[in-house]
Amino acid sequence: MSKQIEFFFDVGSPASYLAWTQLPSLAERHDADVVWKPMLLGGVFQATGNSSPATVEAKGRYSQLDLQRFARRYGVPLNHNPHFPINTLTLMRGAAAYLGTPRFHDYLHAVFNAMWVEQRDMHQPDVIAEVLAADGFEPREVLSRCSDPVVKDRLKSLTTEAVNRGVFGAPTFFVGAEMFFGQDRLEWVERALG
Amino acid sequence: MSKQIEFFFDVGSPASYLAWTQLPSLAERHDADVVWKPMLLGGVFQATGNSSPATVEAKGRYSQLDLQRFARRYGVPLNHNPHFPINTLTLMRGAAAYLGTPRFHDYLHAVFNAMWVEQRDMHQPDVIAEVLAADGFEPREVLSRCSDPVVKDRLKSLTTEAVNRGVFGAPTFFVGAEMFFGQDRLEWVERALG
Repeated sequence: MSKQIEFFFDVGSPASYLAWTQLPSLAERHDADVVWKPMLLGGVFQATGNSSPATVEAKGRYSQLDLQRFARRYGVPLNHNPHFPINTLTLMRGAAAYLGTPRFHDYLHAVFNAMWVEQRDMHQPDVIAEVLAADGFEPREVLSRCSDPVVKDRLKSLTTEAVNRGVFGAPTFFVGAEMFFGQDRLEWVERALG
Repeated sequence: MSKQIEFFFDVGSPASYLAWTQLPSLAERHDADVVWKPMLLGGVFQATGNSSPATVEAKGRYSQLDLQRFARRYGVPLNHNPHFPINTLTLMRGAAAYLGTPRFHDYLHAVFNAMWVEQRDMHQPDVIAEVLAADGFEPREVLSRCSDPVVKDRLKSLTTEAVNRGVFGAPTFFVGAEMFFGQDRLEWVERALG
């Protein structure tokens, strides 16, 4: 059985974006599979009483600086989204809708990129539609998938799973029973994979 | 002029303890001086609207695990203090009192050790007295220094300095104008010195 990294994330989290830029190559280096776990970070915050670093001004300011340092280390673009924080309910339902389908990674790429490189205002339905259309999605089809009760339940149940397993923020990784919080713990994830 | 690492810390923070175990040797490796900046973390929290990770249950639980991982990596003991969080006003006034004196490091050693290795209840005056006496301090002299208005003002002014420079938690390091938050950023501090 191959090794697994469970990856709980929300596209509205810049640290999830950074982790997403690194995870596939990390997994490949260790011959491990990524188990994708889209969750609603707002739901996790609500259930755990946690909140975004951005709610504390000095912490929010430092956090942006810290993420930029890691972006430079990784050699990936990161442009803070001026519309942050964005309600990601529709976007994460979209991730839950495409989970396990051939277009899952195209969807993530389109949304993460629009959010953390292109600085698009991703809680505007017309902006979401434009972004998805540019990546070859049919926006109305995506929205219709997002309103499917099965998809809504899938996102809810992944979010509940996260909370039940001790997740309080994004991104969070599991290697077996070991939990690691934060894109800055990728090195520990790597070490856990051996 | 030799390189400097400014180190803002509070003895009530286990992450400050871990940083303290590593900082002197790190500074030595880089021929740098540590500029010790005792501050009252409770005052920083109040001024910035920040709070301890321990206020969110799942985060507090994970945080203990995360600190243990680093303690093992560093090869230092860390025993979570069951009396945590402890009001550190007297203890940090003591640190401010001995700042710049030959006994500063003995004082820090006694207090950090009692707090994060011996798990003493360091908000009890008799426990503090016992801990200090065991390390050769005269408890009544320490307490009298702690109630000196000059010492009280010193701690207040270091705490204000921290907040004014963007500090929101402990430990925080500055290398020149570059700020780094968290004992897990020691590697970045090292890089900034290099």
